[in-house]
Amino acid sequence: MAPFKDYTYTHFLVTSPSPFVAHVEINRPQKLNAFSEPVWREFATVFDRLSHDPDVRAVVLSGAGDRAFSAGLDVQDAVNSPLGADLNGDPARYATNMRRHITEFQDAIAAVERCEKPVVCVLHGISIGIAIDISCCADVRIAARNTRFAVKEVDIGLAADLGTLSRLPKLVGSTSWVKDVCLSARDFSAEEALAVGFVSQVHDSKDAAVAAGTKWAEFVASKSPVAVQGTKELLNHARDHSVAENLRYTTIWNAAMLQSSDTKTALMSGLQKKKPTFEKL
Amino acid sequence: MAPFKDYTYTHFLVTSPSPFVAHVEINRPQKLNAFSEPVWREFATVFDRLSHDPDVRAVVLSGAGDRAFSAGLDVQDAVNSPLGADLNGDPARYATNMRRHITEFQDAIAAVERCEKPVVCVLHGISIGIAIDISCCADVRIAARNTRFAVKEVDIGLAADLGTLSRLPKLVGSTSWVKDVCLSARDFSAEEALAVGFVSQVHDSKDAAVAAGTKWAEFVASKSPVAVQGTKELLNHARDHSVAENLRYTTIWNAAMLQSSDTKTALMSGLQKKKPTFEKL
Amino acid sequence: MAPFKDYTYTHFLVTSPSPFVAHVEINRPQKLNAFSEPVWREFATVFDRLSHDPDVRAVVLSGAGDRAFSAGLDVQDAVNSPLGADLNGDPARYATNMRRHITEFQDAIAAVERCEKPVVCVLHGISIGIAIDISCCADVRIAARNTRFAVKEVDIGLAADLGTLSRLPKLVGSTSWVKDVCLSARDFSAEEALAVGFVSQVHDSKDAAVAAGTKWAEFVASKSPVAVQGTKELLNHARDHSVAENLRYTTIWNAAMLQSSDTKTALMSGLQKKKPTFEKL
Amino acid sequence: MAPFKDYTYTHFLVTSPSPFVAHVEINRPQKLNAFSEPVWREFATVFDRLSHDPDVRAVVLSGAGDRAFSAGLDVQDAVNSPLGADLNGDPARYATNMRRHITEFQDAIAAVERCEKPVVCVLHGISIGIAIDISCCADVRIAARNTRFAVKEVDIGLAADLGTLSRLPKLVGSTSWVKDVCLSARDFSAEEALAVGFVSQVHDSKDAAVAAGTKWAEFVASKSPVAVQGTKELLNHARDHSVAENLRYTTIWNAAMLQSSDTKTALMSGLQKKKPTFEKL
Amino acid sequence: MAPFKDYTYTHFLVTSPSPFVAHVEINRPQKLNAFSEPVWREFATVFDRLSHDPDVRAVVLSGAGDRAFSAGLDVQDAVNSPLGADLNGDPARYATNMRRHITEFQDAIAAVERCEKPVVCVLHGISIGIAIDISCCADVRIAARNTRFAVKEVDIGLAADLGTLSRLPKLVGSTSWVKDVCLSARDFSAEEALAVGFVSQVHDSKDAAVAAGTKWAEFVASKSPVAVQGTKELLNHARDHSVAENLRYTTIWNAAMLQSSDTKTALMSGLQKKKPTFEKL
Amino acid sequence: MAPFKDYTYTHFLVTSPSPFVAHVEINRPQKLNAFSEPVWREFATVFDRLSHDPDVRAVVLSGAGDRAFSAGLDVQDAVNSPLGADLNGDPARYATNMRRHITEFQDAIAAVERCEKPVVCVLHGISIGIAIDISCCADVRIAARNTRFAVKEVDIGLAADLGTLSRLPKLVGSTSWVKDVCLSARDFSAEEALAVGFVSQVHDSKDAAVAAGTKWAEFVASKSPVAVQGTKELLNHARDHSVAENLRYTTIWNAAMLQSSDTKTALMSGLQKKKPTFEKL
Repeated sequence: MAPFKDYTYTHFLVTSPSPFVAHVEINRPQKLNAFSEPVWREFATVFDRLSHDPDVRAVVLSGAGDRAFSAGLDVQDAVNSPLGADLNGDPARYATNMRRHITEFQDAIAAVERCEKPVVCVLHGISIGIAIDISCCADVRIAARNTRFAVKEVDIGLAADLGTLSRLPKLVGSTSWVKDVCLSARDFSAEEALAVGFVSQVHDSKDAAVAAGTKWAEFVASKSPVAVQGTKELLNHARDHSVAENLRYTTIWNAAMLQSSDTKTALMSGLQKKKPTFEKL
Repeated sequence: MAPFKDYTYTHFLVTSPSPFVAHVEINRPQKLNAFSEPVWREFATVFDRLSHDPDVRAVVLSGAGDRAFSAGLDVQDAVNSPLGADLNGDPARYATNMRRHITEFQDAIAAVERCEKPVVCVLHGISIGIAIDISCCADVRIAARNTRFAVKEVDIGLAADLGTLSRLPKLVGSTSWVKDVCLSARDFSAEEALAVGFVSQVHDSKDAAVAAGTKWAEFVASKSPVAVQGTKELLNHARDHSVAENLRYTTIWNAAMLQSSDTKTALMSGLQKKKPTFEKL
Repeated sequence: MAPFKDYTYTHFLVTSPSPFVAHVEINRPQKLNAFSEPVWREFATVFDRLSHDPDVRAVVLSGAGDRAFSAGLDVQDAVNSPLGADLNGDPARYATNMRRHITEFQDAIAAVERCEKPVVCVLHGISIGIAIDISCCADVRIAARNTRFAVKEVDIGLAADLGTLSRLPKLVGSTSWVKDVCLSARDFSAEEALAVGFVSQVHDSKDAAVAAGTKWAEFVASKSPVAVQGTKELLNHARDHSVAENLRYTTIWNAAMLQSSDTKTALMSGLQKKKPTFEKL
Repeated sequence: MAPFKDYTYTHFLVTSPSPFVAHVEINRPQKLNAFSEPVWREFATVFDRLSHDPDVRAVVLSGAGDRAFSAGLDVQDAVNSPLGADLNGDPARYATNMRRHITEFQDAIAAVERCEKPVVCVLHGISIGIAIDISCCADVRIAARNTRFAVKEVDIGLAADLGTLSRLPKLVGSTSWVKDVCLSARDFSAEEALAVGFVSQVHDSKDAAVAAGTKWAEFVASKSPVAVQGTKELLNHARDHSVAENLRYTTIWNAAMLQSSDTKTALMSGLQKKKPTFEKL
Repeated sequence: MAPFKDYTYTHFLVTSPSPFVAHVEINRPQKLNAFSEPVWREFATVFDRLSHDPDVRAVVLSGAGDRAFSAGLDVQDAVNSPLGADLNGDPARYATNMRRHITEFQDAIAAVERCEKPVVCVLHGISIGIAIDISCCADVRIAARNTRFAVKEVDIGLAADLGTLSRLPKLVGSTSWVKDVCLSARDFSAEEALAVGFVSQVHDSKDAAVAAGTKWAEFVASKSPVAVQGTKELLNHARDHSVAENLRYTTIWNAAMLQSSDTKTALMSGLQKKKPTFEKL
Repeated sequence: MAPFKDYTYTHFLVTSPSPFVAHVEINRPQKLNAFSEPVWREFATVFDRLSHDPDVRAVVLSGAGDRAFSAGLDVQDAVNSPLGADLNGDPARYATNMRRHITEFQDAIAAVERCEKPVVCVLHGISIGIAIDISCCADVRIAARNTRFAVKEVDIGLAADLGTLSRLPKLVGSTSWVKDVCLSARDFSAEEALAVGFVSQVHDSKDAAVAAGTKWAEFVASKSPVAVQGTKELLNHARDHSVAENLRYTTIWNAAMLQSSDTKTALMSGLQKKKPTFEKL
């Protein structure tokens, strides 16, 4: 499929399988789609652009190749990051550099979460470390049956710091399970991910999973973008606020948004049983 | 069944199937129990009264008729609300009116949540839009097998603003599922609602579901009202506060409540294997 | 098994089934492991000590004897606590004493949560009241098939105030289920606890459950203690904070912790396919 | 001065000294403007109505007569409230009634704070107890030189529970001063109130203070009501939220409000050096 | 003056200048009342005991000798603390020890804040470093004119971590001033401390300041302890919570506390113009 | 003075009056230093760079020319921003664009706050609108006697949305004063700003004020950068968090930072009475 508009990137392939839907593929299959610093910096660029692109209403994210969604951190590259810096210097100054580095890295991964359009993440094959951090930022998760998941960081001697420990406990119901997989770094399967609610669909192959993700994105892209993007914003706000706070924020949000033509368009199309067309957003 | 005391209302039928249990039915079956402004204003009146009525210790909520718990917003009525106001005026003034209107509407729906007595919501038939908002305010949810659920607002061009987006993510375990149903507005079944934990029982018919809800309410109404109502308050507080905050609040709460005669009554009845009788609350 | 080091206590038996693993047994089987004031005060002492002991990297908690993990509050003892005080005095002064008492009691139970090392709680037999409060403080919960669970406090005329109402809603996915068991005080089984995600494993016997808990503890104890203990801290912090707050805290935490030798040790052992050895913590 | 529109009340006199300005006087001078239950219930009615009245853009609040803004709680009346109830009953049930009563009382006093229009409170003469609670809800405080202030509740054996302890620490700069006057219940003068920033103006007589308050209200009433009422809302929100939260809320608020015609009207009037006229709000 | 009851300590002198008032003096004048680890551990013991002692209703805190309230950290002693540990070990393990150490140190200083009885802190002479941390925990601050204040930590190469940076911004009105003195570590005088509201009284000598503090304590100790201690609790809660949260907490607090005999005693004494006598608390 | 390093910008002049001190001047005197979109975008660039520049330890910010620190928004430019967009389109889409625009504008202004080095803001001449927003982000504020301050937004028909309403209430002690100046948009003088604590010094001329700001920056730049920058971070964190949260964060922060060589350097220099030299940060 041809690239979408001029979305031409070094580490990502962006296509458009149908109107208003963008498909982003992590495109380093020879490296199992691992993330070096140039990769995650470009990752943020791609998603921050999709976020405001009026031709995009839903996004599918997957990995290129058959073997992995992503094998996580590119360890060879990490040697050149502050993580690999000489530790003989002043620990406070090392800590300062590390703090700045982690913050930038976290912000890049969070581009999926702050993308104003819904993102469905299709996991397949090896999906460990950063793969989990990224998928936790997506709105909906779908997996191929062969997915091998792991919150792998404990096995390289560190507590995960790119978002898994912050978001995973708020995405699934069983804290006993979350602590099990995070403290032990053990693998878990697509079936287990479905049972605990981490993913909401499992399909027999990567292709079937990508097709299901694309179908979901198409369905959502056919709805009012004012309604859909507002719903994403309000649900993300709800996660981190009390019910009272979220209700107050919702009220202010809709005081402007209910003035949209989309409500009328949607109601009329419903009555006339025809497909609505919404203005760009 | 005869009305409970003088609980006589236009849009609601209130009866008492057994001592200390009230059964509220949304009573507009010809309109699929849809909510116009007079309906939601009366709804708040009913639940605010039950909240302080010493003859009530548990409440069952269902819809009258076979077809629907509720079809949500009464769209014809909405045309006369600020939602249907002329949009040619000043957008800031429109927004101000809308803000006041949404706030009042939210407060009316939340009467179920702030009712001091446990409320079990029995869903059946069409249960969309406001039906979801209301059921999210209840303590326990039970469904008939024929229930058709949908967070329907996206299909009428708006983000749900009466509480579903605020509360649903805190009621069930899988955020992937919550975002799926909220962003797509798709239907889901009673079985699916059970699997994700939104409801905790499914029964074969509306009658069986109402019977189960009533039985649960009777069981809870037989317990110490000081203990039961305190438990509801502390659990609702827990949802929106850290563990440390909730423990501190609990301590202050029980500093008064442990002085109740109910503790002694409950302990004695336990030892003597007889049914306790508690003072009104 | 011989006591671990000089961990000799009146109400608890502490052994070490394998290196860096401590096994704590509540040791009042003749009282169904019920908690009197001396028991919970000693309980805090044991866990606060394990928390800082460099020879401990994971803890298993179970009850002695075949009948119960714990039957909860020792009611006979409670008569001598502020709970049993003469109520004819000034209610404000009674409330003040009660407030101080509950706070100390809560702090003792929370020793499991503030223990810096992961704690796996193995439930079996009667596990009601305080048993639930304690297990909610553990990281991972495993149950024997014969476990009889109940949030029992409503049946003795009070709202649970030692932590169950604060923590349980944040440990499992279905609020409808949480409110059901907390408001009704009904029993629930190990299978039900597994289905809702309260426990993450069920085994056929107490012995099998303890063995599984010990195996899990051994596995985790073989990992970097810097990584494991950091993961516990960050997950506990995540429960009570927004994602943004937790990410910020994580950044500061790892700014120091990534300077550890454990990362290098873990990476090297991985490459060399040998078992890593980490410094004490 | 004639009553404003049909604002005719038993305990309050409402007049309009100039367009868009309402002046509310507590009108029980023979009782030193003390608050019985009917008084505070009517108080809430008055301010909730002013809040949405499009003919009002600013409010002045003072007390009728020369002796007092208000002497606080009407103690004789309080005997008939839950505060005076027979204490021989169950302490938990007494506490429940008291909790409901205090909540309603707090909500009534807070009507000044939730009034969408700025309220300037002019204090004079005796201003103790509830007088302080009320004035803490106002936006701007002005005092006559003869004002005698006191956070008086400690002297009647209770901690103030209608808002002074919640709001006063956030209204003035010196916590050492706040704790001094709240713990000791001592009197303080208008000069002292000015020095610590509790009031922002002191005038030589009640009449001069009322005149100054009215002048301030007139000045503010001449500005864009969209701008002024938005400023009050955002400042009240700021008090209870982090800077980041308030900025986010502000953004959503202004996304609607900047569409107002008031901005154009204000800019044009500024350029043309003429007095702007704004639509009602 | 003879020690108060059996309050006999190594580093503190505790006397009782009048009924229900305790006076604590930091008693290391030869070390300028500097804090070594044994000093701060004993400090916590003293205040935690005063907190629950029914014979104490108000506390005065000052330093022994003419030269200093306290010169802060005992630097010689600090060499033996984790602060002085060999830095050649693993930085993550050093950080872990340091974290535990700082937490314990903070908790000891905070004993003044969690003391349920009001504490008036009388500053005089050298009052730097920990002296500021401690005084920020007190309720009311009074200074002798010769006091030399400084938030001194920047001058020893560290950010203050025992509470000054947490509490000082919430105690005084001008953040520009707070940042000035904290970032520059410069000295400031009693007059300056009064002008910004850090202290609420300045007296010409240490003796006069101690006398004023004692007089304040006596006055407060003559009031209802239920009212005074509740007021301290609610004001401390207010600092860290929104107005809505504090009002809710206040309601629950007073639901128990308004049942006290103190209200009746206070009202009666007021009517009869005689000095009330309250039960111990 | 020559530009500092290669800090060459269109709208800002950056010089270095002494080692480790940078002086930023808003350099559009002919426009009264008003902010157009290119100006605020460059503003963020300058401060984000200073934040991480190891040659900078303190920053002075002032306006070029004699007439104004800044006259606020460049109104002519604003016509081309979303603020000036055609309002005939869909209000929801207008609101979306406006929301994105305000967020970016807020983030640019906040660069002063997130700058890791202390910033002293020297106000002089006209200082209205954005001038107040910016100065509220600085750490210390100093004014020339001729400064004319105003929170001017109400006069152009909008509620201030770039930070003044969020930050000003947390910078000064008197809320009555804050609401007065924000609701009325009236001018206030340097003397008044000093009296309420908004600025901490007033000088007779712009030159004297800049000199005082520079002297303060030099003094702070001579201290340990680990200590100074940590102090700024912890004080900024304190503003938006409870004392308990800030203490916990502080502990983690210092667990790394106390390993710095700066502590030793500072202590030694103190003992040896010589000027310390610290490594870059």
